[in-house]
Amino acid sequence: MKSGSAKVGIIGLGRWARVLTRAASKSPKIEIVAGYSRSEEKRQAFEQEMGIPSVPDAQALLSNPDIKGVILTVPNEQHLPVAEMVAKAGKQVYTEKPIANTLESALEIEALESRHGIQVMVGHSARLLKGTRLMKEAIDNDELGAIVFMEANFSNERALEITPDTWRWYKDKAPGGPLSQLAIHQFDSLHYLGGAITEVSSIASKLSPVGAEVDDQSMTLLRYADGKIAYVGASWTSPGIYSIRVFGQKGLMHYELDFSAWDTPDRLHETSLLYIQRGKDGYGKREVL
Amino acid sequence: MKSGSAKVGIIGLGRWARVLTRAASKSPKIEIVAGYSRSEEKRQAFEQEMGIPSVPDAQALLSNPDIKGVILTVPNEQHLPVAEMVAKAGKQVYTEKPIANTLESALEIEALESRHGIQVMVGHSARLLKGTRLMKEAIDNDELGAIVFMEANFSNERALEITPDTWRWYKDKAPGGPLSQLAIHQFDSLHYLGGAITEVSSIASKLSPVGAEVDDQSMTLLRYADGKIAYVGASWTSPGIYSIRVFGQKGLMHYELDFSAWDTPDRLHETSLLYIQRGKDGYGKREVL
Repeated sequence: MKSGSAKVGIIGLGRWARVLTRAASKSPKIEIVAGYSRSEEKRQAFEQEMGIPSVPDAQALLSNPDIKGVILTVPNEQHLPVAEMVAKAGKQVYTEKPIANTLESALEIEALESRHGIQVMVGHSARLLKGTRLMKEAIDNDELGAIVFMEANFSNERALEITPDTWRWYKDKAPGGPLSQLAIHQFDSLHYLGGAITEVSSIASKLSPVGAEVDDQSMTLLRYADGKIAYVGASWTSPGIYSIRVFGQKGLMHYELDFSAWDTPDRLHETSLLYIQRGKDGYGKREVL
Repeated sequence: MKSGSAKVGIIGLGRWARVLTRAASKSPKIEIVAGYSRSEEKRQAFEQEMGIPSVPDAQALLSNPDIKGVILTVPNEQHLPVAEMVAKAGKQVYTEKPIANTLESALEIEALESRHGIQVMVGHSARLLKGTRLMKEAIDNDELGAIVFMEANFSNERALEITPDTWRWYKDKAPGGPLSQLAIHQFDSLHYLGGAITEVSSIASKLSPVGAEVDDQSMTLLRYADGKIAYVGASWTSPGIYSIRVFGQKGLMHYELDFSAWDTPDRLHETSLLYIQRGKDGYGKREVL
């Protein structure tokens, strides 16, 4: 038991729930005290691995007055119904990205805040990465000069592994494929780094041999209110990368992350790369941070 | 005098003419024997620096029966009239990229081949870079598996330096700004690496404080006949890069070039980077070539 920490529950006990639970166990500010999944198998595995009790129905978790909020790690199309249930119980809502699988559901989730007097937070964890924050600092300090151009990519090979048993196979559950699964992180990061976005265009392609409904390649161009432009790429069928490059009139900054360490966020910095390139001297003059 | 080499002339004696002349001096296959520019100052500077005679009018060069071909290093909008003059004299034409500043002029240049029985070659030198050729080999040998996705960028800071005295300032002479000046190299490289392109869309922005007519930021999305997609970015107002990344189902290959060595092609390989990343292990498992 941590003293003074906020007690929360977690609904949805898959892989990402375990990543977040391990991370939360290292924080003095939050304590996950109960988990729920429809699957008894997942409940038992979670209890065993995490040493945290699970409950056989969501109401058992929501009726606990000690629990102030709930982390949602359920598939995207369940974000709205589960968030609604949590909000009606008067608990704060944290849901993993993307906020929902349709714009309509996203707006309904947003409306829960005023309707039930709670807060909803969407887990765009990537903007919290150390390199992203250092880039934001450099931009705000005018170290790079006027920012004119940004490029980001988040790719991995998961579309080669998905099966009809998983929700990521289906268009209605994971619209856009890597757009809503991977690129979504970079949209949030580029919004954080660059401000208001006014125009978007996108192309996609389906090239995986497995036969899933969803597209597996995605490229998007963005235009910001101030005229700068940006690109976000996400390939879902290749050994992947996670990178953001910011081009300014005085300097270029590049951040690249070894996402093989994605599931152990406290070790991510060990293998990530961040550099500034200044002036005309090409990358012979890069300063690694 | 080199024996057995092809003798050629060069028209347009600016910076790039000197780069090509220095490169040609190292080849046993070609010998530049005369240069021409409208500017007497440039003719004298070229003679002095290169030790190669210049001629005071183009006809003096074109009437020399020893000269079998002419290298064009004139501004883009002069490619057509100069190529026409060279072709009419029965000489082979080599012109720097892009082939012309409009599609119509490009098609007229193409037509010179059959009309005058000569050959026209466009100087897309980047596809000859060692890294580009090694990527092509890896693709052809199926080392990367099915290629699904490509990204390329060629950027530099030149738009911060252009003035109304230079042709690159003007929309009709350098349409698209970095699109026709920089991205053009990557379009050729991606065509070489990926085959037939069937769809293109592009955005641009003008953000340089100098006030030139041309845009200075360019992003383009491509779709190939086989469904794979690609991106080409070119910022013209930032410390820049030259990079190509090819995503395949078995491996990802990345090539990046320190273009501060761009003017000394024989030294480019010293500071360039080429790696393959295979499997799921992130860039901890990158193999530098």
